[in-house]
Parts: sequence; C-alpha cells; structure tokens
Amino acid sequence: MFDPIEKLKAYVAHASVSADPAFAPHMAGARDFVGGLLSEIGFAVEYVPTALHPVVVAKRPARGEAAKTAPHVLIYGHYDVQPPDPLDLWETPPFEPQVRGSRIYGRGTADNKGPLMAHIAAVARLVEATPDLPLNLTFVVEGEEEIGSVNFKTFLREHRDKLAGADFIFMSDTGIPSPEQMVITVGLRGIASFEIALTNAAMDLHSGGHGGAILNPIQALAELCATLHTPDGRVNVPGFYDEVCEVEDWEREELRALDLNEADYAKFLGVSQFYTPPGYSPFEAVRFLPTLEFNGISGGYQGEGAKTVIPSVARAKVTCRLVAKQNPAAIKAQIFKTLRERAPAGLKMELLSQHDAEPYLVVPPGRSNTPADQSPRLAAGFRAVEAAVKEVWGGRPFYLREGGSVGLIADLKAELGLDAIMLGLFLPEDNLHAPNESFDLGIMQKGITTIETALRNMART
Amino acid sequence: MFDPIEKLKAYVAHASVSADPAFAPHMAGARDFVGGLLSEIGFAVEYVPTALHPVVVAKRPARGEAAKTAPHVLIYGHYDVQPPDPLDLWETPPFEPQVRGSRIYGRGTADNKGPLMAHIAAVARLVEATPDLPLNLTFVVEGEEEIGSVNFKTFLREHRDKLAGADFIFMSDTGIPSPEQMVITVGLRGIASFEIALTNAAMDLHSGGHGGAILNPIQALAELCATLHTPDGRVNVPGFYDEVCEVEDWEREELRALDLNEADYAKFLGVSQFYTPPGYSPFEAVRFLPTLEFNGISGGYQGEGAKTVIPSVARAKVTCRLVAKQNPAAIKAQIFKTLRERAPAGLKMELLSQHDAEPYLVVPPGRSNTPADQSPRLAAGFRAVEAAVKEVWGGRPFYLREGGSVGLIADLKAELGLDAIMLGLFLPEDNLHAPNESFDLGIMQKGITTIETALRNMART
Repeated sequence: MFDPIEKLKAYVAHASVSADPAFAPHMAGARDFVGGLLSEIGFAVEYVPTALHPVVVAKRPARGEAAKTAPHVLIYGHYDVQPPDPLDLWETPPFEPQVRGSRIYGRGTADNKGPLMAHIAAVARLVEATPDLPLNLTFVVEGEEEIGSVNFKTFLREHRDKLAGADFIFMSDTGIPSPEQMVITVGLRGIASFEIALTNAAMDLHSGGHGGAILNPIQALAELCATLHTPDGRVNVPGFYDEVCEVEDWEREELRALDLNEADYAKFLGVSQFYTPPGYSPFEAVRFLPTLEFNGISGGYQGEGAKTVIPSVARAKVTCRLVAKQNPAAIKAQIFKTLRERAPAGLKMELLSQHDAEPYLVVPPGRSNTPADQSPRLAAGFRAVEAAVKEVWGGRPFYLREGGSVGLIADLKAELGLDAIMLGLFLPEDNLHAPNESFDLGIMQKGITTIETALRNMART
Repeated sequence: MFDPIEKLKAYVAHASVSADPAFAPHMAGARDFVGGLLSEIGFAVEYVPTALHPVVVAKRPARGEAAKTAPHVLIYGHYDVQPPDPLDLWETPPFEPQVRGSRIYGRGTADNKGPLMAHIAAVARLVEATPDLPLNLTFVVEGEEEIGSVNFKTFLREHRDKLAGADFIFMSDTGIPSPEQMVITVGLRGIASFEIALTNAAMDLHSGGHGGAILNPIQALAELCATLHTPDGRVNVPGFYDEVCEVEDWEREELRALDLNEADYAKFLGVSQFYTPPGYSPFEAVRFLPTLEFNGISGGYQGEGAKTVIPSVARAKVTCRLVAKQNPAAIKAQIFKTLRERAPAGLKMELLSQHDAEPYLVVPPGRSNTPADQSPRLAAGFRAVEAAVKEVWGGRPFYLREGGSVGLIADLKAELGLDAIMLGLFLPEDNLHAPNESFDLGIMQKGITTIETALRNMART
C-alpha cells in the first residue's frame, strides 16, 4: 500500500537545494528517491544529464496495442527546492518534515514535492487497480525549476524523441485561493528583465566641491525612470500594449465568479489603496495586463546617516511582466530604444539584458475564443479534469490566468507544441519560498483522488 | 631652533582618528603633542573637555599694557584626522610619516596637521624674534572636525569667556588650486540633509503575483525625485532661491582672473559635459548656487542578477548645499512641504531630518558689497594677510567662495560673532581623506613665512 504522506516525508528529507552546489549530494538523493519511487510503481526510469542537474524521465506506456492509440499524458514536476534561509525563522528544521495538525511542514512540501507526490500517488493507485488502463504516462521531473529551469529548454530540444507522442501536460505547480476553490491555471505572464546603469563622473565626487557642476546620475536615473509610466499607471513606452491579447468576457466573469474581495487583498498586502490602470480591478490587472516594474534601485551612499557624495553610477533593475501575445525580445528592444531616446546627454547608459520568458495562454474548450484548431485530446483532457474536479470538489474549477511567470510552460509549448493543464494544489498560506513552508494534507488527499479520477477519465477518451 | 618638518613628523605619528574609539590613546597623544608644543613656545595651555574629544585652548596675551589694546587673533586648527582606510593603497604606512621628494606623506599631513604646524611654526619664530610683539594670540585646536565638529558649538557656547576679546579667526584648513595661486576662502556653502522613505506594502512582494495591482515605491520615489529639478537644472521647490544672495561682479571677475580651465576640470572629473543652470559656469555654479543633490538611493534587490520583487520601501538620501543667506531650517521646511504636496496618495512617506550647517560669507574690505559695519580689526587683518601674500607669493591672493561646507566657521560667527580669514595651503593633489595623503613642503615653508609676515603686519595695526 502506497502511503503518500510517509513517502512525502522521506522525499522532503532530501535537502535538494538546486541553487547551492553544497547541496549536490542531496539533489542526487532527491532525484534517486523520485526515480526509485516511479520504478517501484512500474515506470522505466532514466536520468537524462543536463549541464547541471539531470532530468528524471519515467515512462509507462499502455499495455499492448493500446500504446499506439491511447492518450499520452506527460506529468511535469520538479525535485529541487528553494534554499531554506533564514533558518532561524523555522519552527522545525526545514529538512526534518513534521506533521502538525492537518499540515506537513518542511522545505518543498508545497513547492513542488507534495503536489508531485499527489500525482505519483494517484498514478500508483491507478496502475495498481487497473494495470491495463489504456493510457500512456510519462513523468518529466526536472531539478532546476527553482533556478529558472536554465537547462530545461536545451533538454527539451535535445531529447524531444523521449517525449514524442505526448498529447498534453498535466501538472500541479500552481495555487488555489482557498481550500474550497479549485483553479486550473490557463495563463502565465512572461518576463523581460534588464538593468539600467547610468554613469557620469569617473569616481564618486564630493558634493560640496563639485555639486552643481554636473548631472547627478541618481537624479538622471530618477528622471529617466519617471518617464516610463503615465500618470494613470500605464507603461509609457510606444508600442508596449500593441500585441496584448484582448481580455474575453468569460475571463472577467470567471474572476467575478471567484468572488475575490478587494478589501481582504489590500489588507493581505498591507496597502491602503490599489493602483491599476483605468478599467481594471487589481485582480484583473495582475492577470491581464503587462507591467514595467522596478525590482531594485541603487546608487551612492546607502548606510546610516549621511555621506555627501555624488555617485559615479546609479542602477535600476527592471522586469516587465508580459501577457499573451507579447514577445519579450521585441518588448525589450522597444524599451531599450525608448530609454536611449530619453537618456540625458553626456551620461553613459548601459542596458544589461537579463533573462526572458514567454507568456503563456491556453483556452479551455468551449470558451468563446478557444482556437478552432485546438487538439481534441487536449480538449478531452480539460473535460476529464473538469469532471474529476466536479466529482471531488463538488463544483467546477475556475479557469484563471495568473500573474507569475513559469518559463518552462512556454518552453514546453514552443519546443514540443504541448499545452498544459495546470491543476492548482497549494494555498496562499503554504509559505512557498519562505520559512515554515507547509502543505495541507486534506488538499493533498483530495488532489490525489482528483488526479486519479482525471487520469481515469482521460483513459476513456 | 624650531624645525617644523621634524615636529610635523612627530605630530603625524600620532594616529588621531576621531571617528574610531579604538584610536582614543592616539587622540590623547596628538592632543598632548600640540599642547606641549604650544606650551614650549610660551602659551598657557588648557585642555577643555567636551562630550568626546577635548579642545586645546592655548593663549599668549601681548606683554604688559598692550594686552588690552593689541589685536587678538584666534588661530583655529584640528588635531584629529580621517581614518586611513583602505590601508593597502598606502605606499608607506599612514602613521609613519616619510619625506619623499618635496612632500611629506602620511594621514593628516595636509588635513590639518601640516597647515596647523605652519601656523605654530610661524608663531614660534615670531615670538622668539619679537617677544614683545603687541599681539594677543589664542590657538583653538579641536579634536572632532573630521566627525562634523559635533561638540564644537556647545564648547563655544559654554566657554565663550575663554575666547573673549578675539577680533577674528586666522586659519588654514582650505585649499589652493595650484602652487602659484594663493586663495583666501571667503565663503562656504551650508548644508541641509535629510532622507526620504516611501513605503507601500507591508513586506516585499512577488512582482509576478502582485505586479500591476499596487504602486511600486521605487517608481513613486523616482517620480517624486524627478519633480525636484527643472529641465534646465534648477531646483524645483517654491521659494528655494528666494534668499540666495546676489553674486557681485567682483566675485565673477575674481574667478575669471584665476583662469580655471573647463576642459581640464571636465577631464579631472571624468565627465563629457557640465550641467549647470543657465548663466553659470561650473566654477561659478559650485560656489554661488545652492543645490539639491541625491547622495544615495536604495530599494529592492541590489545584488547580482534579478530578483522579481516589489519592495516594501524605497529611500533617497538628499543634501542641499546652501549659499548665503539661505537658512537650512527654512529651506528644509519648504522642501518637506513640497514633498508632502507631491507625494503619491496612499503611500507612507517618512522625512528624516539629518544634520544642517549654515552657509558662510565674509566680504574682504574694499569690495563693492563689503558691509559698512565691518570691523576695522577684521579689515586690517585681511589687509595684513594680503600684504604678506604679495610679499611671499609675488602676487595678490584670490578671494573665492568654495562649494564645501565647514559648519564650524558659521558656528564661530554665530556664537562669537567672529569672521575668518582662511588662507589656503593644501593642493588638489594632496589626497585629503584618501590614501597617500601628503603635504608640499615648499608650500609649507612659504606658508610659514606668509603667516609670520601676516601676524607681524597685524601687530602693527
């Protein structure tokens, strides 16, 4: 009998921090644990090397002739976790998982070991109960999600044969707003990151001796950054919104049906008011609109008290969140052109391009703007999951875009042509990426049943 | 025979770093050295305690009845020095002074031990050659100049009786542009320091999940800071220039006579162009105009690469340099009022007031805007110094304002009503506050002769 909670405890005990080379043995431990588990339940497991952490690929084709005709579901997960710092804020050690009340605590319990374990447990039950199920199953479990899936695109490109024939992705690495509301994420924002550095004098200067003679790069940077938004909060870069896809009525209705509360959201954020472009609620703005956000700014003296310096250089770190169908490279090119046009004369401006990710959008079947050419298998997959959710959750799932970026989803689409059905399993209070990360065991159990039911439904299509 | 170079070496060997309590014994060493030296040449020395480092007060009244009628010159200096860091950039240890070529190297050689030693040596010669000189002399040598003369104003207020009867200050803690050009500094800019902090959300937020819903405090800060200057580089705060004193024609002529070269200055700073309000050269702007300068800005992530955060708070450090007759408190109040009017709705703005210093201006006698009530003793002092400079330097001194702030000069004026005759002795290449600080021994010798001659001239008035 497969006990998902005991398995999850053993899995979480592997401190698989991908960001820190010191954790390499634990990365290998987590990888072997997942591979071993999948092998135990009948999968052929392969560790595919990348430039850093291998990808676990585990396959279980349908038996006999069905292998050729049955749906092929690719289940994605990741075995790496965020660093556990700051350690002193944890109530129990991050890699000594502990069940307290209805929750299991430990780094990675929610992101992504618990949700992946729900998929493995569901599959274990399914293949034990119905070994002849006409369904091809492939797990792809990477070890670099928390460091931006840096080698995943290359893996997909070089090993597309290993994943050939898959119909769509089924996965759980997204959230739900409350234990009563199931969400299937259908859109993710893309990202375009860069840094602006403005340099004037060759060195930091004394502001007494030289103040008034030259343009202070902090002033120049503030003035430049201040041009990047209009007073109503839109991004003030020509062409920025040109490729933004229309928000369909059903999307706004879906959000309204979710019945989110602005006052609660403001309280959660600790803000006294929202700041969104006209015509968009905060819940809409974070999902449907692109942004130009300053993630960091620095220049001159930042310690205690005062130091009367005119700094040589000032910097700003910027990320744009992009929505379908904006292209990160094109947007970045337009922003750089705009910055060059607006930069003050005489200063040296460096624009350092950093990582990009494509936005992603899939439309569930039956919605007004579902593409006519949507694959019947994908449509059937959505229906299979919806039916399972109704059965287990007692109500239909909400189909929502999210504001975050998960580049690997767009990579899977770009490299393999596969869309993803993203069944949310973690809650806002799960503390992802933070101390005392935990996962709700009730949600986990419902998740396992939902996934098992969904897969069984898929096998019928 | 008083050997100023040997004395200076012994003086510099005391590592009198006022900023660091670990150097306290060396502070005491430097203080005792100065006191001992002044005692040796006939001064009555007193160490006046303050909340931190004592002030050396040394008096030598004119002999007999002349004490009541002779001019009373107060010579200011400081026995503390800047910290020597970074130590590895020094060619010889900072507190093992060494003569190489025509220079003496070591921390404090130029700021202010060498120039003060020039005054002591000049006085030593003078009183040895002419013990009956009708001149009252008082040295005031403080130990906190490098930490902003934090207790000096209180010292002046509490011990004004010790300095009673002084006619003016004579001192050397300012610079000259070249070995051929003597400058008497007649103006210093004041300062008004503060910090702006803009806070929105209660914590740093993920820019994926929440970007687009709230105003980013970096954006808000950039937009706020960008309102503080007009496109032509003036400070955009109502009333900011109201009290700025007119620049007299003779001041502009004096600067032109100095024949400073803009291309050389730009090269020295490493800038490709200057940025001054219309009608002011860079040399004029730093002396005659007030500024609002950003000394530091910070917010969000500042490390390598990207971190997709909307910070909770963003901060800017600001100092205004002020010119006569601007009042730091009034200017700061006006800026704070303006910032509050312009601050974005919904964010929390904190304005943290930091230190202030008054601007200072004295007009040498015979200039068009010399106050009618200028003391005859001060006017005679200026003439005495000018005659000495002509004799030793072969040309008249330039009377210039400087862009920096030396609050103690304004404090001496405010507390004792005394103006200062500031004879420059250090050169741009002396590396004040930097590694390999040094002092030109040729300038020192000429300085001693100039000071001796000037004091002798003063005694005749």
